[in-house]
Formats: sequence, C-alpha cells, structure tokens
Amino acid sequence: VLIRVLGAAAGGGFPQWNCGCDNCRAVRAGDSAFRALTQESVAVSADGDAWFLINASPEIRSQIEAFERLWPRAPRHSPIGGLLLTNGDLDHCLGLFSLRESQPLVVHATESVRAGLVNDNVFYRTLERFPGQVTWRSLDLDEELPLGDGALRVTAVAVHGKVPLHLEGRRAPSAGDNVGLVIRDTRSGGRLAYFSTVAGPSEALSRGLDEASVVFFDGTFWSSDELIRAGLGTRRAEDMAHWPTGGKEGSLSLLASQKKPTYLIHVNNTNPVLREDGAERLALRQVGVEVAYDGLELTC
Amino acid sequence: VLIRVLGAAAGGGFPQWNCGCDNCRAVRAGDSAFRALTQESVAVSADGDAWFLINASPEIRSQIEAFERLWPRAPRHSPIGGLLLTNGDLDHCLGLFSLRESQPLVVHATESVRAGLVNDNVFYRTLERFPGQVTWRSLDLDEELPLGDGALRVTAVAVHGKVPLHLEGRRAPSAGDNVGLVIRDTRSGGRLAYFSTVAGPSEALSRGLDEASVVFFDGTFWSSDELIRAGLGTRRAEDMAHWPTGGKEGSLSLLASQKKPTYLIHVNNTNPVLREDGAERLALRQVGVEVAYDGLELTC
Repeated sequence: VLIRVLGAAAGGGFPQWNCGCDNCRAVRAGDSAFRALTQESVAVSADGDAWFLINASPEIRSQIEAFERLWPRAPRHSPIGGLLLTNGDLDHCLGLFSLRESQPLVVHATESVRAGLVNDNVFYRTLERFPGQVTWRSLDLDEELPLGDGALRVTAVAVHGKVPLHLEGRRAPSAGDNVGLVIRDTRSGGRLAYFSTVAGPSEALSRGLDEASVVFFDGTFWSSDELIRAGLGTRRAEDMAHWPTGGKEGSLSLLASQKKPTYLIHVNNTNPVLREDGAERLALRQVGVEVAYDGLELTC
Repeated sequence: VLIRVLGAAAGGGFPQWNCGCDNCRAVRAGDSAFRALTQESVAVSADGDAWFLINASPEIRSQIEAFERLWPRAPRHSPIGGLLLTNGDLDHCLGLFSLRESQPLVVHATESVRAGLVNDNVFYRTLERFPGQVTWRSLDLDEELPLGDGALRVTAVAVHGKVPLHLEGRRAPSAGDNVGLVIRDTRSGGRLAYFSTVAGPSEALSRGLDEASVVFFDGTFWSSDELIRAGLGTRRAEDMAHWPTGGKEGSLSLLASQKKPTYLIHVNNTNPVLREDGAERLALRQVGVEVAYDGLELTC
C-alpha cells in the first residue's frame, strides 16, 4: 500500500484558529520544534495511479493541491477513485462538500455514517445534482471489500467511539458509528491498520493491529485531562471518545507491543507529543512510535 | 476601512481540484503569469484590532493562519468580531462549520440567508452547543447597522442573484437572497462597496458604487460562454447569476465609469483575467480595474 498523509491533526488543525495555547503560539512563532498540521486525512493507492482518501477533511482542497499525484490529468478529471469515512465527525466529512463540482464520487461508509450525512441535511442536495454524482458503497463490518479495481481491499472494524457531536441526542449509538479500517494490498500483501478514533481497547482492535504491517492510531490526546489542565475545556479525553496515549492506562503499551511501524494521527493541538524535543515524544520514540505529519509517505 | 483579501477565487478556488483547464495547469506548473487563489473572503477593520469577515470560505482556517492580525491573543480568543454573509452559497458559508470550537460567533445575514443555513441542516447543531454560540444579526436591506463597536457600519443592498444551488426548487427566490455590502468607516469616511455576486445591472447597485471609495466586484467570468467554450460545462454565466466582465454587455463599462480603485473578486478558475500578461487583463488595466489576490491590503 502506498500511503501519503494529507493531514495529521485532529479537528481544528494545528494551530487551531481560536487557540493560543503554548503549542499553538509556538508553531505560529515559527518554533522549529513544531510542524503545522492540517486536519486528518490519508491517501492510499496500490499503483500510484488511482488513489483513495481516508476521510474528507475541511481542508481537502489545499491537501489535494499539496500532493501532485492527486492532480487532474484531463480538463475534468480526478485520480481520486473513492473516499472512505471512518465516522461522521465534521472534520472527517465536511470536505465532501468541497468536491461538489460535477465530479462523480464514490464514498465508502457504514450505513449509520451515510445516514448521518444524508438525512436532514439540506447541504447534501449539492451532491445530488445529477444521477450518479455520489455512489455509496456500504462498509459492512468485518467484510473485506474491493476498492476500485480491487488491487486494494478494505475491511471495516467496529471500534469504541461515539455518535458525532452534531447528532448527539438525535439518535441511538450504533456499532457502525466509528470504525477502523484494515487496507490490504493484494499484490504486496501489505496491510495498513488505520484507527484514528479509538475510545478504548477491544478484541477487534487488537486483531486489526496484530495482522497489520503498518499502524496509524488515535493520537488525539496524551492525557485524559489535557484540555482541563490547560484551562481550555471541561471534557476529558474519554468524554470525546479518545483513548489517551500516555499514563498507566494509555494506549502506548498496546502500541509498543506491536513491534511494527506505528504512527499517531488525529493529533490535537494541545498534545505535548507535537513538540519534537519533548519528554512525551521521547517516550514514544523509545518504543518505536512516531507522530504522523503532513506529507509523510510510506509503503507497506 | 482597513481591507485585507483572504481569498479572491470563486467557489472551487484556483486551481480547482478536478480541473485541468489551461489556467489550472499553468498555475500548478508554477507559471509566473498566474497566482494561486483561495476562495473568496475579505477581512475588514476600523482599527486593526477587531476584524469582520465578509463570507466564510471553506478554507477559512488557512486564511486566518495566513493573516497574523486574525490570530488569537489569549488561550481562547479570536479578534474576529463578526462575519457577514453576502448569500447562502456553500463557498460563502461552509467555513462557519470550521469555527465550531466553543467560540461565540456573531453572524450578519439577511433573514433568507440565515433560514437557508439553519433550516433542515443537521450540521447546524454543531453551532448550537451552548447558549449564545451564534448571535444572528439581521441585515435588513438598505438599513445601515453598526459592526461591533460601531466604528464600521454596514448597509446591505439587494442585487440580482439567485437561490443557492442546494436550495434550488426548495423555496421561492427572495430579495434578500443575494446582497452587496457598503461598509462605511465612521472616522475616515471611507466606503467599501462589496459586490461579489451580481447577476446584472440595477439602480441599487449603481447607487452603491457611486458613493464608494473602493469597489470589489463580481469577476467570476469574463464571458458568458466561458465554461461552454472550454468544454467544462453547459451553463452560461447568466445561468449562474454572474454578470460577465467582458463583451459589449459586460460589467466593465459600468466599472470603468466609476474612476475609483476597483478590484474584481470571486474570480473563476477558467477566467482569462487570471493571466497577468493576457489581453483581458490589459483591457482591465487600461480602464483602471485590477484583479484582487490573496493577501492584497488596502485602506479607504
């Protein structure tokens, strides 16, 4: 699998528009210990020709322009063969509405994510302007499906998560609300395990990680009370369905046990791992875990 | 009025993600006759301290980061004192949903634009998470209203336009669907006339231009059949409610008659005026009309 990180930050990006926390101030000031990050999205391909985007960030336009392989090759064209949504959060879906210019789209999502986007959403009419504008492909849990010509195959794995913020109180949670993706290259045999939103451990998650060649994992928060201590919020990481990386109960021990290339992604602007020379980053490095960044490319 | 152009392109930006027209190919190739442009938005201020954004483009995050005066000055803060929407098109409104992080917003819009955003839109719940998250201020036509502390005052002027694409067939057109804005600085006396979507001439438009010190005007298309001739679409400029600049019936003669600093904005990626050394750009320059670009600053 050819992998290119288009954006590595959690919703809001890094820096976040209304945030003057230490990290955001430092990156704005040009402190070389930090890199600016756009919001989470990753492009994958078997052949470098057809690409599939995991999540559609609000910054999708600049993300496409920053990666030459995603540029059109004809007057109206896109090498983007499809999009995959891991949940219905706005930072994963808003970008779809920036792809509305008369281009047929294929979107892979669970039924609950699709319904959350399509129902009670007048904006969605912009993606219904001609027959076949959006072709939905259902991500049925634990079933391996072809992407495009089938050189890549994807399996969606239910992981602990939550209903998107804007749907809270609107409908009951469902197993398909939040998924990880295992993307297998049928030729190389490489497997990318992509779990960018994980509320906590589960057997399905462990299985997904075990069989992977490369792991991308929820790196939203280092600690549970990160926002509270910074005076920036009242909610703990767990209230937002994110498993913190650090601490005794953190995800790091699970990730460290994997012994394979592992990258934190969906990193929140407040996260101390964003500082390249900080103690938390060192703790990651010591167990072979890296922090993803915009433009990172790898192959598995 | 302090004016800073955050983005000068029409919906889709320049280059547009799925467009390989001559202009888009040239700007991607680094041709120095072209500048890349993000989607239309302009920031205005009386004192350089509090700023008001005309339109909320999908690229609002990168636009804010590109202009230091819009950066937060406290752990949770924004110098953006309000936003003004000229119509309900997605390229003018999607950015609101990228400003959802617990920050109170003030949005000025006509009642019909507000209703188009708020009704039948499950995404809007993300802007209703706490009391006072969004304060709507109604832009009543032809009535001058204060912005923030009142150093700037704004008057909305109905201009020919149309219902946003995603609301077509959903409701009847209304006079408030599409407005120009006249923004007056009560101290300097300067007046910005901002008319980024204009379907054709009208008395109200001419009055707005007459009293202005600086004009920003709809520069979407140079000619009616621009998309058709390029093989990129079937609709004429007029079908999309844009008055072309060139030709015998074009807006240029009205603009030329104004004899004041005048900038085309909301420029479509196909527009030949984007070529700095082209014949169309020369025709503009000969009558004192310029093309706006990201980062342009002026004062009136």
